[in-house]
Amino acid sequence: MSYARQMIDSYPHQSEIDAGVLAAAIDALSDCIQACTTDLDADLSESNLADMVKCIRLCMHCSDVCEATLGLLSRPAEHDNRVITPLLEACIAICKSCGDECERHAHMHAHCRVCEEACRRCEQACRELQVAMS
Amino acid sequence: MSYARQMIDSYPHQSEIDAGVLAAAIDALSDCIQACTTDLDADLSESNLADMVKCIRLCMHCSDVCEATLGLLSRPAEHDNRVITPLLEACIAICKSCGDECERHAHMHAHCRVCEEACRRCEQACRELQVAMS
Amino acid sequence: MSYARQMIDSYPHQSEIDAGVLAAAIDALSDCIQACTTDLDADLSESNLADMVKCIRLCMHCSDVCEATLGLLSRPAEHDNRVITPLLEACIAICKSCGDECERHAHMHAHCRVCEEACRRCEQACRELQVAMS
Amino acid sequence: MSYARQMIDSYPHQSEIDAGVLAAAIDALSDCIQACTTDLDADLSESNLADMVKCIRLCMHCSDVCEATLGLLSRPAEHDNRVITPLLEACIAICKSCGDECERHAHMHAHCRVCEEACRRCEQACRELQVAMS
Repeated sequence: MSYARQMIDSYPHQSEIDAGVLAAAIDALSDCIQACTTDLDADLSESNLADMVKCIRLCMHCSDVCEATLGLLSRPAEHDNRVITPLLEACIAICKSCGDECERHAHMHAHCRVCEEACRRCEQACRELQVAMS
Repeated sequence: MSYARQMIDSYPHQSEIDAGVLAAAIDALSDCIQACTTDLDADLSESNLADMVKCIRLCMHCSDVCEATLGLLSRPAEHDNRVITPLLEACIAICKSCGDECERHAHMHAHCRVCEEACRRCEQACRELQVAMS
Repeated sequence: MSYARQMIDSYPHQSEIDAGVLAAAIDALSDCIQACTTDLDADLSESNLADMVKCIRLCMHCSDVCEATLGLLSRPAEHDNRVITPLLEACIAICKSCGDECERHAHMHAHCRVCEEACRRCEQACRELQVAMS
Repeated sequence: MSYARQMIDSYPHQSEIDAGVLAAAIDALSDCIQACTTDLDADLSESNLADMVKCIRLCMHCSDVCEATLGLLSRPAEHDNRVITPLLEACIAICKSCGDECERHAHMHAHCRVCEEACRRCEQACRELQVAMS
């Protein structure tokens, strides 16, 4: 069981959000941050560097937005839809863009293929959380 | 002149956003993160600790969302309204909530008064950026 | 296989550090950040709040230092022992302190027990990385 | 007066560290993060991109370590020399490396000149804090 799920299950405050959906989003966000952080460093080592600039930038943006989303979801007590709803929307948008850009390089660079997968899973997990919250 | 403004003025890529409005938002976000980070630690030292819990939590949320917004605005080359627009919305919402909560404690705790001011200025600077981007 | 390990295995730049030890440290750091972030929010919901203040503060410190360590280890191309060696030392020290403090509350709060475990594992993984790097 | 100084002056907990030296370090860290974040995005827009890779990577490392140092210094209540001393050492080392690398590009790129200055000031402010703490 992931630490996210263990922590949620031992949490004193009862969340309105389904624990499984929330833990899945937290794990997917954490994986996506990890994949984006390493992918952009790998991109910087590639010989077709000029082609990788957009990917590097989107990985940084994606990691920043996922980081904020992860922070807020990991501290669920002070939950506010006026903040979480647009934040999830921003997160889904950047995971989509970053996943699309990684896909363009996936046939050449295995690290982009892995990062694409992490972005797609994160986008999907955030969409499922949107549904669970509505 | 702030570092944000100096960096923007020496930036090779021409931004569509007015440099003054962008630099003001970056500076206000940076100040707000600083104020929230210190305010929550100060809150934890207060004798009316149970009353400060909401303030502590909102300061953490505010700092996280401002951090992501600051990151994306500070790397303006790969600007995407589908990401920035909801992110700014989330940022304005949490700055408003956190400012309101700090205001409740401002008469008792000077650190909450200072933090309220930083949140209000950040909210305002993000609203002006919204206008400049639309 | 974790994303950290997948990313390292697909990385174009050959690291001097053993891939298994590095991936284990990255995963343990990521888990520790997650556990600390949620633990401090859970602490804020406990009735013995005044007793939890030190734990809350150490969780924030631990999460910050782990975050920096994770960032640098996840981008291994520009590795510099003058930076990584003291950073790992700081990380081990705060994981130790935070784990010790969580242990004090582990019999009362399951979330502190889970967080203690994550801190201990992270401390251990960072020590193994120290050995692998020396 | 900077927000850092205002917050420290309104802080309930008396720090052992001189308020002026602490506030100067906090402001310099915050400026350095800002400069590094923008500098690396500017680097990615330069035509001599392959020459900028080391600078990009050091800016990311520098920003991460400064972020952790800033976090711990901004929450001074739970101060522990076993953590802060090596963290400051790591911070000084990366500010030095990043400043040196930015200096190499300063004659070509104004953004690297600005970033060099921010790194040098941050290194200096951290050294002064080391002295104040010893």
